[in-house]
Amino acid sequence: MKKTTQTQKKPAKHPDVSKAALALHKKLGGKLRIVPAVAVKNRADLALVYTPGVAAVSTYVAKNPNEARNYTGKGRTVAVISDGSAVLGLGNIGALGALPVMEGKCMIFKSFADIDAVPIVLGTQDPDEIVQTIINIAPAFGGINLEDIAAPKCFDIERRIIEALDIPVMHDDQHGTAIVVLAALVNSLKVVKKNIKDIRVVVSGAGAAGTAVAELIHSAGVGHLVVLDSKGVIHSGRTDLNEHKRELALMNTDAVAGGLREALTDADVLIGVSGPNLADANDIRLMNKGAIVFALANPTPEIMPEEAYEGGAVVVGTGRSDYPNQINNSLAFPGIFRGALDNKVRKITNEMKLKAAYAIAKLVPKPTAQKVVPDMFDKRVAPAVAKVIR
Amino acid sequence: MKKTTQTQKKPAKHPDVSKAALALHKKLGGKLRIVPAVAVKNRADLALVYTPGVAAVSTYVAKNPNEARNYTGKGRTVAVISDGSAVLGLGNIGALGALPVMEGKCMIFKSFADIDAVPIVLGTQDPDEIVQTIINIAPAFGGINLEDIAAPKCFDIERRIIEALDIPVMHDDQHGTAIVVLAALVNSLKVVKKNIKDIRVVVSGAGAAGTAVAELIHSAGVGHLVVLDSKGVIHSGRTDLNEHKRELALMNTDAVAGGLREALTDADVLIGVSGPNLADANDIRLMNKGAIVFALANPTPEIMPEEAYEGGAVVVGTGRSDYPNQINNSLAFPGIFRGALDNKVRKITNEMKLKAAYAIAKLVPKPTAQKVVPDMFDKRVAPAVAKVIR
Repeated sequence: MKKTTQTQKKPAKHPDVSKAALALHKKLGGKLRIVPAVAVKNRADLALVYTPGVAAVSTYVAKNPNEARNYTGKGRTVAVISDGSAVLGLGNIGALGALPVMEGKCMIFKSFADIDAVPIVLGTQDPDEIVQTIINIAPAFGGINLEDIAAPKCFDIERRIIEALDIPVMHDDQHGTAIVVLAALVNSLKVVKKNIKDIRVVVSGAGAAGTAVAELIHSAGVGHLVVLDSKGVIHSGRTDLNEHKRELALMNTDAVAGGLREALTDADVLIGVSGPNLADANDIRLMNKGAIVFALANPTPEIMPEEAYEGGAVVVGTGRSDYPNQINNSLAFPGIFRGALDNKVRKITNEMKLKAAYAIAKLVPKPTAQKVVPDMFDKRVAPAVAKVIR
Repeated sequence: MKKTTQTQKKPAKHPDVSKAALALHKKLGGKLRIVPAVAVKNRADLALVYTPGVAAVSTYVAKNPNEARNYTGKGRTVAVISDGSAVLGLGNIGALGALPVMEGKCMIFKSFADIDAVPIVLGTQDPDEIVQTIINIAPAFGGINLEDIAAPKCFDIERRIIEALDIPVMHDDQHGTAIVVLAALVNSLKVVKKNIKDIRVVVSGAGAAGTAVAELIHSAGVGHLVVLDSKGVIHSGRTDLNEHKRELALMNTDAVAGGLREALTDADVLIGVSGPNLADANDIRLMNKGAIVFALANPTPEIMPEEAYEGGAVVVGTGRSDYPNQINNSLAFPGIFRGALDNKVRKITNEMKLKAAYAIAKLVPKPTAQKVVPDMFDKRVAPAVAKVIR
């Protein structure tokens, strides 16, 4: 009998839950229920919550609009809105395809932060119509979570809605991702004993997530930052860049050009927010010692953790629950909106995003290669994030 | 000691519930809660309702849009939408003022018909924007209940949205009112032993409710029909009529002109959907024997029941809960949408509205002057209405 040495324990194959998910969704017929906060059983109940009593409340709120958050659901309700143009990794599958995802997100809002969230999917993908529609339906909501809207239109859409409204508006694919990535990065740097000012970071993907990740970690102190899109490294020499990518090119201060291998050479961190199987162990070998790899494409990462480790990576994170270091937006968005509602925040600033990232990182005071972010279900996370959104 | 004769028992003064309503609303901070249909406690739960499992559902629904009503909340959710331009009797108090009323309506939807209803209030009162906004947010909903939108713009708004969407759309101030009024009329006519073909009906008010009431009872067989607006009887000789009122003028086949007294002379039915204190006992005395008076302005009717009786009315209905014959929309709209969702109805037709009215009337098989409509909380009502919406 031959004795074998198991160098790396392969994880179980990600189980296919498609059939079970389809069955559950059909059984439920919608994953949310909208219920009265008090029972309506007789005329006396109705006289308080509806006519005639409600007239006094309507009059009061109309005269004192700032009181709407105290007397109506505005103070506890967030709209989760998508046009279905970039749903998960499925692409532009439209409004109805997006709806199950938005419902799931609303479930997380309630479960993690006691926020009543309403899924809204739009029958238009025109940026002007998206902006105007969301502005028009905003009064009932205390916040707007934009979701799964394709880049680059998502940037302009978010900016215009933020400017128009006096409630917090956040495109979670951008900022939720960026906040959690920064949290993971901060703790990973402790593990590998590097300083954020010195590291070279490669972001693979210049869509919603990649752009926001680059911007946030840049503002957190990352000086050497190279972002790639599908055509390779984004640098000022390229003539095919839109305004958002021209901003990203400015961060490429070392004027790196070429593809992923050129970018990874002597890099400290690879953040993949693009698509499956873009790198292998040989690519990771080009990186500096103590390499950090976040491969966030779901369900198949840019590089499987086993390969990243093989190439020398020390800290590896993915979006998946079956590997260590699950870097998941739900660590951020429930607390972000909880804090915004609690503290009557009108705008989520860059400073708040930084603070949120640091608050998440702080919940793992002694990070290890296997644990740089808290567990998604850690009940301390949302309150810790909420506390700094003010 | 003098012996007194009490000829008419005065009802207790409608109690002022304003303070209690304000206190309850402040305590609740919104009258609805949006909750997950199944618990989300761990990764296995999340894998089914969110990523990765939800991807299979999104893909399936995107490819089979008709399945959205089975796999998402679309099959159980109605949007209750107002621009706040005509809220209760309070007038144009805007979006935030309308919100408590919409929330109350959503509570009734859930309590009476197990429909998940979402309150949406619009930050615009422009008809084109209202139409486009509602069309744009429609995909997540199985029906649209328009509410408290001012006449005459409400007519065109409703028509355009109905034409654009493949889900049922109903402006409840129009059709909910009309259905319940017709139900009450049918049973009242049994009480006074008159035939709908022979009666002369006066509708005071040519807004959303008055117009729809006139149209529905006309289609139910009322031949002699006079509608009044704030300037008096609507007739073809008037030059100040918009297109909607010109339609109403065509129903005035006897070419009645003048004011309320001219209209009421020899009339059998007065339906008030206008405002408080427009008539007195002397006006009712002008009517035929066996007069029917529905005075629906809330909280103060066009004529108080005591005065209507004094003037000779036999059947009197109001919108109030402290008099007999409460003629309230909630007898109609929950069942209308329940039926529309259950039976996959794409459009609420006039025939369905007639059937709904007859179904409501039928629940009081032996009507009396004191009871021409079922109780609002009669649990048979919504299912009976739902059954005929197909």
